[in-house]
Amino acid sequence: MHTVGLLANLDKANVLEITGRLVDWLGARGIKAVTQVDVAAAMGRASLGLPVPALVETADLLVVLGGDGTLLNAARLAAGARPILGVNLGRLGFLTEIEVPDLFGAMGTILDGHYVIEERMMLAAEVLRRGETAQRVLALNEVVVSKGPFARLIHLETYVGQHYVTTYPADGVIVATPTGSTAYSLSAGGPIVNPNLDVLIITPVCPHTFYSRALVVDHRDTVRIRLRSTHRDIMLTLDGQKGYALEPDDEVSVGRALQVTRLVRLPDWNFYGVLRRKLREGPSPGEVMP
Amino acid sequence: MHTVGLLANLDKANVLEITGRLVDWLGARGIKAVTQVDVAAAMGRASLGLPVPALVETADLLVVLGGDGTLLNAARLAAGARPILGVNLGRLGFLTEIEVPDLFGAMGTILDGHYVIEERMMLAAEVLRRGETAQRVLALNEVVVSKGPFARLIHLETYVGQHYVTTYPADGVIVATPTGSTAYSLSAGGPIVNPNLDVLIITPVCPHTFYSRALVVDHRDTVRIRLRSTHRDIMLTLDGQKGYALEPDDEVSVGRALQVTRLVRLPDWNFYGVLRRKLREGPSPGEVMP
Amino acid sequence: MHTVGLLANLDKANVLEITGRLVDWLGARGIKAVTQVDVAAAMGRASLGLPVPALVETADLLVVLGGDGTLLNAARLAAGARPILGVNLGRLGFLTEIEVPDLFGAMGTILDGHYVIEERMMLAAEVLRRGETAQRVLALNEVVVSKGPFARLIHLETYVGQHYVTTYPADGVIVATPTGSTAYSLSAGGPIVNPNLDVLIITPVCPHTFYSRALVVDHRDTVRIRLRSTHRDIMLTLDGQKGYALEPDDEVSVGRALQVTRLVRLPDWNFYGVLRRKLREGPSPGEVMP
Amino acid sequence: MHTVGLLANLDKANVLEITGRLVDWLGARGIKAVTQVDVAAAMGRASLGLPVPALVETADLLVVLGGDGTLLNAARLAAGARPILGVNLGRLGFLTEIEVPDLFGAMGTILDGHYVIEERMMLAAEVLRRGETAQRVLALNEVVVSKGPFARLIHLETYVGQHYVTTYPADGVIVATPTGSTAYSLSAGGPIVNPNLDVLIITPVCPHTFYSRALVVDHRDTVRIRLRSTHRDIMLTLDGQKGYALEPDDEVSVGRALQVTRLVRLPDWNFYGVLRRKLREGPSPGEVMP
Repeated sequence: MHTVGLLANLDKANVLEITGRLVDWLGARGIKAVTQVDVAAAMGRASLGLPVPALVETADLLVVLGGDGTLLNAARLAAGARPILGVNLGRLGFLTEIEVPDLFGAMGTILDGHYVIEERMMLAAEVLRRGETAQRVLALNEVVVSKGPFARLIHLETYVGQHYVTTYPADGVIVATPTGSTAYSLSAGGPIVNPNLDVLIITPVCPHTFYSRALVVDHRDTVRIRLRSTHRDIMLTLDGQKGYALEPDDEVSVGRALQVTRLVRLPDWNFYGVLRRKLREGPSPGEVMP
Repeated sequence: MHTVGLLANLDKANVLEITGRLVDWLGARGIKAVTQVDVAAAMGRASLGLPVPALVETADLLVVLGGDGTLLNAARLAAGARPILGVNLGRLGFLTEIEVPDLFGAMGTILDGHYVIEERMMLAAEVLRRGETAQRVLALNEVVVSKGPFARLIHLETYVGQHYVTTYPADGVIVATPTGSTAYSLSAGGPIVNPNLDVLIITPVCPHTFYSRALVVDHRDTVRIRLRSTHRDIMLTLDGQKGYALEPDDEVSVGRALQVTRLVRLPDWNFYGVLRRKLREGPSPGEVMP
Repeated sequence: MHTVGLLANLDKANVLEITGRLVDWLGARGIKAVTQVDVAAAMGRASLGLPVPALVETADLLVVLGGDGTLLNAARLAAGARPILGVNLGRLGFLTEIEVPDLFGAMGTILDGHYVIEERMMLAAEVLRRGETAQRVLALNEVVVSKGPFARLIHLETYVGQHYVTTYPADGVIVATPTGSTAYSLSAGGPIVNPNLDVLIITPVCPHTFYSRALVVDHRDTVRIRLRSTHRDIMLTLDGQKGYALEPDDEVSVGRALQVTRLVRLPDWNFYGVLRRKLREGPSPGEVMP
Repeated sequence: MHTVGLLANLDKANVLEITGRLVDWLGARGIKAVTQVDVAAAMGRASLGLPVPALVETADLLVVLGGDGTLLNAARLAAGARPILGVNLGRLGFLTEIEVPDLFGAMGTILDGHYVIEERMMLAAEVLRRGETAQRVLALNEVVVSKGPFARLIHLETYVGQHYVTTYPADGVIVATPTGSTAYSLSAGGPIVNPNLDVLIITPVCPHTFYSRALVVDHRDTVRIRLRSTHRDIMLTLDGQKGYALEPDDEVSVGRALQVTRLVRLPDWNFYGVLRRKLREGPSPGEVMP
């Protein structure tokens, strides 16, 4: 390993200090670290800064310092090109692997080759507008088609492969990967799906109907959602982070992407263990959240 | 009865023709009809037109020609001042009373005095901002505090009376009347509540927590929701129809309004019968909805 | 206060020791304690033993030493005749009031008159069989009509007052009080209802239909459930503790009881605080439970 | 095709008449029909009767005349040995293929070779008791471990492969195939899963916890459920039809069976179409069901 790319979320406490220590720790082992231009500047080590595409291109490994949100963003940027190791600077995550107190021990273990690469399915979505592809985007957790804040509900005519499923009258429809099954789809009533399964989950959001249960379908099927409302303000959202405005006759087509996200895991990582810990966590009353 | 105010939804098919026939039918019985200025103009009977506040002021009875949405709007305008009779020009409704084929028979029955007035609780909501009341609004179905389309989730610190309940990490929180229990609150997982009960229903929308069940509380309690997110784009929405932008430190306070909505019902109207019919209705595939 | 009746659950650890100390503590204050015959015998103080009906008759206050289950049982026995104070020997309860470490401090506070009596609605259920009342029973949490272990599902034709609601094809139907809303009804998908509201909650168990949402109705309405299955093995269960076999054409009629349960509460008891603590509690893996 | 085995449900109306006509129709095409001994006797054609094992052994094709329940039973008996064609004598089914009015047309199409065989995963379950296998059974829809009618709840320590998942405090736990996802698991809150996926669904029944969501796992994983209650009356149930009493320290191990059920389908059969039709069907009020 020659070069490690550090993608840091500047909103997290102590992120500069931890990033700086990691740069030094890697340097002491003959490994070059690069980071985003703004992070490098904020650390006063501008020479480490690279634009993100060049950073991804250069690095053998991406280390993400932040929470699951930071890692989702990195996953869309890296899209299978580089393995990603998540260092958790927030609450316990499903995607991040290492807690800060374990950072250097775990990095040592990984540099010694004791890790596994876990491949996570991604979604490729296309927006079809008047017969043309208007957008082509990737997501790791989920693709959501949803109403804007004023609409009462929207109608989403939904197909799996060649088969018409139903027209959901709902706030929206989520198409999630197994990785995304523990995120927004779960809050909308979907099942928990082992992240290694080859399935897609279709979960309506606040359906005004009794065809309201999540649907688990094959990863080789394309899910197509045709807008059947004249409302403006319908949105396509990726991983809760990026949004695109849709138009009344658009069709959103979602299927498995060719790319995968490659997560670096310590050998004893265990989905069910993380799940148990997450489910025990309650909300944190009074806390102001970003 | 001297004057009937007709509030018609111009988006519905045949609305002008039905409204016109109703004006004539009332005229033949010595009852004056007035309607909105735009409806009167579209009928070519401009002299019947009145601005809505004057129309409400003048009328002994409001007849709403449209769907449940039209009636919700009328209920906020009338706010207890006048009884409302809903004539359904859309799909079967919980609030509208009469289907078009029965219109004149039912009107005759009502003019003969064979009806009951059903009082439905309304909600009064206030937005508190920097110690001042920034908004004061009414709703018949529900008051919703919810995220805009881009936010991942928001944190809503919720109190019932003096008691802290929890901080929902969610897409939003609904405070519904029993009337609203069969509307948005139902799609978010809430219970069905008999419309004559004196309770409020607090239903989180897509809660990212396991404190996710709806809460039924006393109508004398004030529900207070404090925004605990730094997000912009948080909205207050009334009956899915009117929205107001909220600011980061706002508090929304929701309680029973002094006003009620007074619905005119034929003597055999029956909540459970309407409920059974609604639950049998499925979505209408392929239909483009407003 | 002259006489306190102690109802102790012999399955709980340390129950005899705690009961013994409480007898002595009361004696030192000139208050006589009585307890069940078997508890008195097990303590080696047989003279304190009374049959339960005589115990309830004699006592000014019932102190229940056990968990919520023990208190449910005491509530059906006492049925409004005596106030009940629950001392929690199990996990945090909604009905019990005092934790063991606080026992004597709290008893002192109560004997000084610093307490409130919280009245909780009870249910009266009748089984009608061939035109006769075959059973007449009370419950504090809920009345359940449910299938035996082998039946696939049963059909339960359900009425609220005079109104037919629906015929649930389900494992069963729960009629719960607000007190019971946080017990079995909650696990079957029902809402959380403030215990002081005057409502009944009808919650189907595993409904094989989409009319599956809990229904909240007025406490003055009688809920009638007519068995519409030829299955044997249908059961009526009270508070998860007492069961009666039903027959194919039976009708179960459930309404508010004339009796109430009177709980002794310290002045700062708060439903929402207990709720938050309960919701944070997870299962205890590996533990063998009774 | 030489011999067709007819498995008929004698509880269904007209079953003897339809079976008789099918025997004749097959005979006219040179195909021998055999049926259960009691059905043959009831038709007055005792020579067609065979014990079920011999019937399965002899037949090239099993035609099931009944509902989904009859077919579930046949599937466990045939266990992959013979293809099964379901003729629906009840309500629309997910497993049965042909409605009675289409029977002879469809049989002709099938004998002409225009059909597909759809393979459906089955479950193999073992009961481990004191280190020995006490039962070994098959199911097509689901295996359920559940409490008897009197127990309050039971504790079920659940593992997926080598991983501890959680200990459900619940009425029971369902392990379902995708075929079973539209049956009992759906009423307990589970997702709808395309029947061709290679997954298992773990759905708790009325969980008294917030770890309550269904879990979708790999078909190669074994699900193990260890009884952690001292209750008697815990049952293992297969497809809602066959039950076995469990003992306090039993472990139930459920995995994919080597056998599959082979369903004969007309070429245009479509899961989503059947699903839409089923979801539109409501309960049938007032009907007495078996």
